Amino acid sequence: MSARTIAFIGLGVMGAPMAANLVRAGFDVVGYNRTAARTDALVAAGGRAAPSAAEAAEGADAVITMLPDSPDVESVVLGEGKVLDRMRPGSLLIDMSTIRPDVARALALAGAEAGVRVLDAPVSGGEQGAVEAKLSIMVGGEEDAFDAARPVLDALGATVVHVGPAGAGQTVKAANQLIVAGVIELVSEALVFLDAHGVDRGSAVRVLAGGLAGSAVLDRKAPSMLARDFDPGFRVDLHHKDLGIVTAAAREAGVAIPMGALAASLMASLRAQGFGDLDHSALLLQVERLSGREGETSN
Amino acid sequence: MSARTIAFIGLGVMGAPMAANLVRAGFDVVGYNRTAARTDALVAAGGRAAPSAAEAAEGADAVITMLPDSPDVESVVLGEGKVLDRMRPGSLLIDMSTIRPDVARALALAGAEAGVRVLDAPVSGGEQGAVEAKLSIMVGGEEDAFDAARPVLDALGATVVHVGPAGAGQTVKAANQLIVAGVIELVSEALVFLDAHGVDRGSAVRVLAGGLAGSAVLDRKAPSMLARDFDPGFRVDLHHKDLGIVTAAAREAGVAIPMGALAASLMASLRAQGFGDLDHSALLLQVERLSGREGETSN
Amino acid sequence: MSARTIAFIGLGVMGAPMAANLVRAGFDVVGYNRTAARTDALVAAGGRAAPSAAEAAEGADAVITMLPDSPDVESVVLGEGKVLDRMRPGSLLIDMSTIRPDVARALALAGAEAGVRVLDAPVSGGEQGAVEAKLSIMVGGEEDAFDAARPVLDALGATVVHVGPAGAGQTVKAANQLIVAGVIELVSEALVFLDAHGVDRGSAVRVLAGGLAGSAVLDRKAPSMLARDFDPGFRVDLHHKDLGIVTAAAREAGVAIPMGALAASLMASLRAQGFGDLDHSALLLQVERLSGREGETSN
Amino acid sequence: MSARTIAFIGLGVMGAPMAANLVRAGFDVVGYNRTAARTDALVAAGGRAAPSAAEAAEGADAVITMLPDSPDVESVVLGEGKVLDRMRPGSLLIDMSTIRPDVARALALAGAEAGVRVLDAPVSGGEQGAVEAKLSIMVGGEEDAFDAARPVLDALGATVVHVGPAGAGQTVKAANQLIVAGVIELVSEALVFLDAHGVDRGSAVRVLAGGLAGSAVLDRKAPSMLARDFDPGFRVDLHHKDLGIVTAAAREAGVAIPMGALAASLMASLRAQGFGDLDHSALLLQVERLSGREGETSN
Repeated sequence: MSARTIAFIGLGVMGAPMAANLVRAGFDVVGYNRTAARTDALVAAGGRAAPSAAEAAEGADAVITMLPDSPDVESVVLGEGKVLDRMRPGSLLIDMSTIRPDVARALALAGAEAGVRVLDAPVSGGEQGAVEAKLSIMVGGEEDAFDAARPVLDALGATVVHVGPAGAGQTVKAANQLIVAGVIELVSEALVFLDAHGVDRGSAVRVLAGGLAGSAVLDRKAPSMLARDFDPGFRVDLHHKDLGIVTAAAREAGVAIPMGALAASLMASLRAQGFGDLDHSALLLQVERLSGREGETSN
Repeated sequence: MSARTIAFIGLGVMGAPMAANLVRAGFDVVGYNRTAARTDALVAAGGRAAPSAAEAAEGADAVITMLPDSPDVESVVLGEGKVLDRMRPGSLLIDMSTIRPDVARALALAGAEAGVRVLDAPVSGGEQGAVEAKLSIMVGGEEDAFDAARPVLDALGATVVHVGPAGAGQTVKAANQLIVAGVIELVSEALVFLDAHGVDRGSAVRVLAGGLAGSAVLDRKAPSMLARDFDPGFRVDLHHKDLGIVTAAAREAGVAIPMGALAASLMASLRAQGFGDLDHSALLLQVERLSGREGETSN
Repeated sequence: MSARTIAFIGLGVMGAPMAANLVRAGFDVVGYNRTAARTDALVAAGGRAAPSAAEAAEGADAVITMLPDSPDVESVVLGEGKVLDRMRPGSLLIDMSTIRPDVARALALAGAEAGVRVLDAPVSGGEQGAVEAKLSIMVGGEEDAFDAARPVLDALGATVVHVGPAGAGQTVKAANQLIVAGVIELVSEALVFLDAHGVDRGSAVRVLAGGLAGSAVLDRKAPSMLARDFDPGFRVDLHHKDLGIVTAAAREAGVAIPMGALAASLMASLRAQGFGDLDHSALLLQVERLSGREGETSN
Repeated sequence: MSARTIAFIGLGVMGAPMAANLVRAGFDVVGYNRTAARTDALVAAGGRAAPSAAEAAEGADAVITMLPDSPDVESVVLGEGKVLDRMRPGSLLIDMSTIRPDVARALALAGAEAGVRVLDAPVSGGEQGAVEAKLSIMVGGEEDAFDAARPVLDALGATVVHVGPAGAGQTVKAANQLIVAGVIELVSEALVFLDAHGVDRGSAVRVLAGGLAGSAVLDRKAPSMLARDFDPGFRVDLHHKDLGIVTAAAREAGVAIPMGALAASLMASLRAQGFGDLDHSALLLQVERLSGREGETSN
């Protein structure tokens, strides 16, 4: 069986375009969002709105949650009269939020008791990836659940990979956030370094992108960084939360992540300086500040 | 005028395939290498061999140097009876080695006095990029010298960009080496993190590569890292040398590069542990060691 | 009222000599330890043994807890039939363990409800400080509770300071652990640096100790480090736990502690390499390993 | 023979009180300073002034240099008609500046050729230590030269230690500067941490100073840091220079100094932000800035 009716809970910056893509792919999508007005666009696109998460979940073949943090997912999914309680046996719960791996494993256990197949399926690729259905989706859970969810996930992303058992998706997402934060910081340091030496940064970015220093961050983020446009995108506050997951998981596993720890420390500091609402690429501002070059950059 | 006869000095891992590509593109190439046997392949490919760097340079339209470090370039190029002394006015000296930006500027000054047009044109892309003529080439120097060198450089690389005046190429290369070292370390930390959490790393790399964590390092280096193949490639010793250039140039310009400094420190430590002859992706070994996971990795 | 009968719960490396000092100072000390044999020395010294923590607490003027971690203190103190439940109104509960500041505050609240005055009073100074009654004691809680506890604390330490309300003692202890870990690492780096340059380290330590680089770590730890004696003392495992408290508290308060974060990362790595049972001064071993100098040191 | 007539070159913040102490100890002191007015105090105290460094050195039993950096010492000491050229065989040259160990070794070689016995004897202890003749002096050079210099050095410091051959004094000084910078940063992080948690910092410093976290920095620097008094003392610019020596020497010897590298990076950043003229304890300002707490601190 592949899912035909999908409940989509959490219609934010990422969730809204994802739900719209599911409608476009032919699914019957029932959306719910705490701020009710956000369902309007879904309805206009051909979906339906539900008055609560639990009611959206009622009778759905699959429920997708796309929420900010671990406690949000737990409070919507678990407990009497909540989402899991309303789902029918054999249906799929796909949590696409970025949460703690241990919480993902707890959800999978709760699902197993209720006869519901649970996947953790966090994404990478940002708002643009969500809009263009080009997300990278890292999926943890049982093989057969992954197979069943495949048509749904393929409507949302370009790279959909089953990476292991319950929680594995979140673990890979944690690794993703570690790398992304680090690469943004490295690119920021390189940009300030180049500027301080009077090099034209547009040209430099072009040539750096073509060699071993090339990265998605350089391709997609450097232009807005050079334009000093730090509209999110992905907010510093959220990346800070994610790096808390990364460092805790590394600590627990006894893994040395010196560069990850530094990235976490720099992101925390950026937030403490009042930049929590900017895009995470605002790490550039901190490098400038630490270099005594605030507002001096000119190219 | 565009260059027809090219002296190529330094036929190592990078220089040899680059010289061959120039022959293939129709240039008359006269090669020199300290270890003479290395010219054999060039001759077999249709080039010529010279008994000394100075004799190779005699009468050439352009001289290319591709040598390990700043003192090597200085000793070959400058001084009585050396390369610069033999070059005819109006010809091009293109140093494609990775050296200190201030040495590159000094070469440009010496060239100007001799009527020779000097470019610093370091490359990124590794042996594979050299073989396939797909290098990224970052060029510093006068605009007209860049234009004159363009046909030569286009025969060697896929991304050829003029980034500024003399020394600017080396500055961009320094930024390149900062980013590359940092990304290798980040990927290493992510791989050990994933392994410690029991995630299949091949799958994880596939999905990470598709999102904002994607990079040339992940594409080109992660497979050999997972296969524990650390044959160079680009040696730790050389990257260590380059990071010395980076940190000195950052220090001189008053630029804060906390992550670059950490990368330099980790690369220096890797070398001190006796891994100087391995590929720079051997940073993975150090993360494993720091995590008490030497030789434990299994996938 | 000043305390005459004192229940002492936790007779480990630190607790045993502290309890003995209280006997020596004339207090009536009733000890309890999970491993019962550890009360023998206390009885021999003139104290008494109780069969459970709760029975030790019964009727005491003051209860002191000296336990490994937050959960240990919570499980002994809180709950029906536990220590707090047995204490009489107006008596003192002095927790001298190193635990999380928020747990210390929770204990103080629970005590207030039961009419018991609670202090958090962690210590610094190690086994030697405990034996010689020369501990530094950093006390959080109400002023009058501090005054009442003063005679008890003065029998245990040379520097007894009231640093603020409930939890403040633990906050200062966290700062203490941040500094101590960092200074041990700095001294380790200096010692390996000196050795690598062929300097006699005994002489160097002597002169360093006399200037602005002087510290208690240099005075008390450097000699055993040079002798390669890493018998605890204070175990890496425990310091690792404490640095978890430090980094969490810094993160929560938005305070940048780049060096503290690095220290935490290095201590975690030392533990991951299998050195958790050594004294925290074993950070020296890691610096040697990172410098490719394992077992090479000679002076 | 012990030295009776001493030439003292460099009468700055440190040199002036040191020269005065030598007069007080009964030596015949001939001073020279580039800014001539600085010799007035020496003359008033009973010393003599010379019109040039070379003339001061003429006929002296010992020459002491106390200058800012390696090039200053080289330019005053080496070359025709310079200090070394004027010194008589068998006399002592004691360089008390903080310079590069390799430069110290070069001076010793030059001295040996001229029959002059050279010591590198940098100091720790600051202006106060200089005034009170309580400096720590770390001496490199031949044993017999050290013995001959002993009476001079004892008039300047409380801890005078021969640490090894030529250059060893500077190596120990480098280790000293590594530790001092690191401890100031650790204390800064602890102070901001305590403030953010509402702890009274004066009390906290008192109790921290009594335990294993105790240090000369906490004793001598914390009070002025809490008073936000960053008058030098020892300037950020100079400590930045010294940390350049430390990191270069560590790099050359293949020693991993992760915390030293971080300290160097933080000091460089402090300088880049325009604080080069403040006392090095101004690292506190940077931690506050990184924590978004500029000017918020209240106790």
